[in-house]
Amino acid sequence: IKKRTGGPVKDCALFVEYCLRGIAQVYFQNNPLSGLLILTGMFVQSSRIAVQGLIAISAGNLTAVLMGFDHGLLSCGLFGYNSFLVGLALSTFYGPDTYYWAVVVGSIIMALFSSVLFVMLGKILAPYKTPPFTLPFNIATISFLLAMGNMNNVDMMPVRTPELPSYEVQELSGITARMFFAGAIRGVGQVFLANNIVAGCLVLAGILVCSRISAVAAFLGSVIGTGTAVLMGSPSSAIENGMYGFNSSLTLTAMLMFYAPSLGSTIIGIVAAVITVFIQMALATSLEPSGLPFMTLPFCLAALCFVVIQGTLRTVISVPLGSMTT
Amino acid sequence: IKKRTGGPVKDCALFVEYCLRGIAQVYFQNNPLSGLLILTGMFVQSSRIAVQGLIAISAGNLTAVLMGFDHGLLSCGLFGYNSFLVGLALSTFYGPDTYYWAVVVGSIIMALFSSVLFVMLGKILAPYKTPPFTLPFNIATISFLLAMGNMNNVDMMPVRTPELPSYEVQELSGITARMFFAGAIRGVGQVFLANNIVAGCLVLAGILVCSRISAVAAFLGSVIGTGTAVLMGSPSSAIENGMYGFNSSLTLTAMLMFYAPSLGSTIIGIVAAVITVFIQMALATSLEPSGLPFMTLPFCLAALCFVVIQGTLRTVISVPLGSMTT
Amino acid sequence: IKKRTGGPVKDCALFVEYCLRGIAQVYFQNNPLSGLLILTGMFVQSSRIAVQGLIAISAGNLTAVLMGFDHGLLSCGLFGYNSFLVGLALSTFYGPDTYYWAVVVGSIIMALFSSVLFVMLGKILAPYKTPPFTLPFNIATISFLLAMGNMNNVDMMPVRTPELPSYEVQELSGITARMFFAGAIRGVGQVFLANNIVAGCLVLAGILVCSRISAVAAFLGSVIGTGTAVLMGSPSSAIENGMYGFNSSLTLTAMLMFYAPSLGSTIIGIVAAVITVFIQMALATSLEPSGLPFMTLPFCLAALCFVVIQGTLRTVISVPLGSMTT
Repeated sequence: IKKRTGGPVKDCALFVEYCLRGIAQVYFQNNPLSGLLILTGMFVQSSRIAVQGLIAISAGNLTAVLMGFDHGLLSCGLFGYNSFLVGLALSTFYGPDTYYWAVVVGSIIMALFSSVLFVMLGKILAPYKTPPFTLPFNIATISFLLAMGNMNNVDMMPVRTPELPSYEVQELSGITARMFFAGAIRGVGQVFLANNIVAGCLVLAGILVCSRISAVAAFLGSVIGTGTAVLMGSPSSAIENGMYGFNSSLTLTAMLMFYAPSLGSTIIGIVAAVITVFIQMALATSLEPSGLPFMTLPFCLAALCFVVIQGTLRTVISVPLGSMTT
Repeated sequence: IKKRTGGPVKDCALFVEYCLRGIAQVYFQNNPLSGLLILTGMFVQSSRIAVQGLIAISAGNLTAVLMGFDHGLLSCGLFGYNSFLVGLALSTFYGPDTYYWAVVVGSIIMALFSSVLFVMLGKILAPYKTPPFTLPFNIATISFLLAMGNMNNVDMMPVRTPELPSYEVQELSGITARMFFAGAIRGVGQVFLANNIVAGCLVLAGILVCSRISAVAAFLGSVIGTGTAVLMGSPSSAIENGMYGFNSSLTLTAMLMFYAPSLGSTIIGIVAAVITVFIQMALATSLEPSGLPFMTLPFCLAALCFVVIQGTLRTVISVPLGSMTT
Repeated sequence: IKKRTGGPVKDCALFVEYCLRGIAQVYFQNNPLSGLLILTGMFVQSSRIAVQGLIAISAGNLTAVLMGFDHGLLSCGLFGYNSFLVGLALSTFYGPDTYYWAVVVGSIIMALFSSVLFVMLGKILAPYKTPPFTLPFNIATISFLLAMGNMNNVDMMPVRTPELPSYEVQELSGITARMFFAGAIRGVGQVFLANNIVAGCLVLAGILVCSRISAVAAFLGSVIGTGTAVLMGSPSSAIENGMYGFNSSLTLTAMLMFYAPSLGSTIIGIVAAVITVFIQMALATSLEPSGLPFMTLPFCLAALCFVVIQGTLRTVISVPLGSMTT
């Protein structure tokens, strides 16, 4: 744990470092260079969204500083990953490509809220040696999206039109290998809500800088999720846009982070990635009447299930939380 | 902790005292005189609703006596505050101003259930040194309101017509200062579901008898909630009726109860009060398809977030739960 | 705790025993003969559904073996009861009486998931000395049913048509004593999703083999649930089909398992059984927009409430979890 001993310039440099680490922590990487590469990917996709992500991550980290939360967590970027996603999500879900004061203000308030939620959920999950993953981001973003329904001074459309779920089977168009792999790469970028192949590649590069195993897991997880969706019969446009890749990608990466890499942990990770797709499809249906997106909730729920059970599996070895975040 | 040593008359007097303390505990005040003033406010608004509240609080406290729950909690009124609200809510949500057997029976069963929920949630939340706030009331009342949909022998309309949420922006009428402050005072009364300025003043008086800081926090919280709603663009009728005051009022009062009053805790309390409004708007939207009211769920969720994190904030000092309830 | 010391034949015999114990564990009976009688009841109702139940229970137990979960829990059948129900539920909710690959594959994946959920929830609930009851079954089954809405390669209708809840009072047809008791017996069978009087009797016989108190509680619980539904005014067809019996039956049986049988625990058990009906009606309403069945969720929620509070009731004695499962 570092202490702030330098002057204001050094403080600022440290703050920037914490923010970059926070961006990388979305994929469990504690490395500012990873964060820089991922951020570049965000600017490639949309500079407006990237800027709003930076505003939100600053708000989230500032909240931690002002409230006096644990400095060790702050310096690992753990107060940044949720708030960064809050900023990206709110600006992505606002359709027009212009800055809108309500989205900026909303990002700041929800980034603050996500930092509080991170501490709160972290405390509740501490006995189970599991972090809250991106639950704070999901809860804060869903709160704001729902709240919009009662804010007449905030003019933002819902992500989907609220409607009762339909269980009818629809005609499917075919999927080519090119569409499949484009979807798998975009899936890695979709973790940051970026529907863009270059952004996906830059995110992968960012992970690779820090850990080869994580980079392979991130891509393989996205392939597994996309493949499961093809087998179950999902719309080809959603598959091509990487919508079935990002949650499974996060799940497999997390599994090979929390369990020492081995044949056993890889198999369990693949099972968890497949179950993530089922949870995602279930959440998509149940969120339809509210018009909400599922974001990374499927990953959070699946990862929580499979990480909470650590210690009860005799076939794999779990990695202590402390040795991971340093 | 008192022992029941007297005869039946003394037992009855004690029981009445516990009920009055229970009424005051809704606002965290452990004082029978506060309870009496608040009860007077309830009778000013509607004697039928006040009587049904008294029936329910008796049922809730009797459950605790008969089941042999902890006598210390009983004597502080902690088995009363949820059941009192159950009685008020069910009789308020039943439209016509007449007694109806189903509401009376429902209040008694749900008051019993709220006492069980209080013990259960209290046990689950004990490691986090936080009480269940009014979650037992909200869960029990929502259970009964939803169950009505499958009871043909109980003829009670839903609180709102079930419909899919609309995210469209509506035309707003202006708000005057008079409407604003009427809303803020009514907000204090709305904690007890009383849409009445005199009732609101009597509730404030009841709190003032026990704690000046709580009384200021209750009113200030209501003002903050109402102000946030004005900024976000909420319908003026809801604002005037105090619908945006009561949850924030409870949150700020709770924050200055669980954290030693200081500049730091006041600022955190104000932040929590503002976030309460966002949670309230989010819940209002998500409960629309079921036609349910949000009641004091927004306060419960916000207060849980901000109270569970106690000990991680270096800027404020938390007050132990034990020293608060005596 | 037994060790696998024998050859493959003995291993298979043990595996069959664990499966039969698992079937009986749905009603808290740790006895292979009970399981055999209940399984006979399932075959009486529909051999296809019974076979799919057996496929799922094998998948659930195999998951526990392959993942290296605790062998003591496995040998008590605790990895079987949820997966058996998953198999029964998915094949029951698939309308036509034919085998369908998607249901078989879905059962196997969800049986695996239910075993993971059992370990995960068991760990979370351990401090409260309560098992997760049939929550793993309910969560896994609901996940698959919801996920169907996004699987075009799986052609299965929803259990109910998704619609917004209606709180209107409907005309009721009368109920005869014969319908009432048929409903109470069917209610015992409905725990295994069997709408069949002979199946209900065989389930009761299976429980009786292991425990007379449990058999009486199972039937009495079903009578109480059915009776409460009659008083509240539920449709007579649902009552006759045992839809109001099975959750209350499970609750009362659980209460007399977790609390030493006495007048006190019987009264609390009856209260819990009545509250189970209210929770069931509430869940039925809230699940309408998704078209989902409530299954045994009402029992899980009610039993959790009343079992978590053990130790706080001075009038009853709780039975340690360890001494129950052997």
